[in-house]
Amino acid sequence: MAVKTLQDLFIHTLGDIYYAENQILKALPKMAAEATSQELKQAFNTHLEETRGQVQRLEQVFKLCNAPVKGERCDAIEGIIKEADGLLKEIEDPEVKDAGMLAAAQAVEHYEISRYGALIAWAEQLEMDEVIDLLEETLDEEKNADRLLTEIAEGEVNEEAA
Amino acid sequence: MAVKTLQDLFIHTLGDIYYAENQILKALPKMAAEATSQELKQAFNTHLEETRGQVQRLEQVFKLCNAPVKGERCDAIEGIIKEADGLLKEIEDPEVKDAGMLAAAQAVEHYEISRYGALIAWAEQLEMDEVIDLLEETLDEEKNADRLLTEIAEGEVNEEAA
Repeated sequence: MAVKTLQDLFIHTLGDIYYAENQILKALPKMAAEATSQELKQAFNTHLEETRGQVQRLEQVFKLCNAPVKGERCDAIEGIIKEADGLLKEIEDPEVKDAGMLAAAQAVEHYEISRYGALIAWAEQLEMDEVIDLLEETLDEEKNADRLLTEIAEGEVNEEAA
Repeated sequence: MAVKTLQDLFIHTLGDIYYAENQILKALPKMAAEATSQELKQAFNTHLEETRGQVQRLEQVFKLCNAPVKGERCDAIEGIIKEADGLLKEIEDPEVKDAGMLAAAQAVEHYEISRYGALIAWAEQLEMDEVIDLLEETLDEEKNADRLLTEIAEGEVNEEAA
């Protein structure tokens, strides 16, 4: 799609994060299955449920913008997931693998935090109040997921890996 | 390299962010040249200088770990930069391009924040005090760069793009 206006950039980036969330939906069950720490496994499963809700919220945002629900191939999330996959294949020790998976999940969360942050700032400029509320709900979830991962890293996973 | 221990994971991730910082060193002058907003151009140039210092700090960390200074191809940063390049080619309007570049730069900052956060948590576990100090200096710079970009977005760039 040609990007001419801030509205176009908003829709383009919406498609980018919609694609990313759908890739994350595929990655999380594998990460939960591979996790040794029960706390980490639970965190991945909880975030899988949240991500399903986030995808639905994005579909609502497309509708509010009168735009077709459509993902845009997101090279960033592809790269982040490819890097995580490659690294995890090189790690045999299950506790070290947990530490690596947790850090990879935080890279994903931070990517999402940056994208939702930009989308909200643009929606404010475009005065799309309902859209802002939906995106802020998701941004709060992503920030909480990142905080929870930090707690699990500091509380259990990194110590087990050392 | 085979990753067997948390120390190995630390060195692997150090190589990953070293590679990423070097890619960012190449990208920032292009972004500064393309920016229309003088404030954004200045922010990219300032961060270019900071990034040079961050690369040197990483080289010190390698030395403190008795590890060779060596980048590990970082698919995540490749993906983030590829996505930004692709998007920017599709935007003609210079003000909308500024908004897109600013958001792309924040995706880069957030990737770095997640990586340095993980490295610091692992260094704490491994009790590498001098390393922690160096990495925390850089993490503070990345967080400040992200905050400054948010200020520029809210203060000027997004309004001009709308």
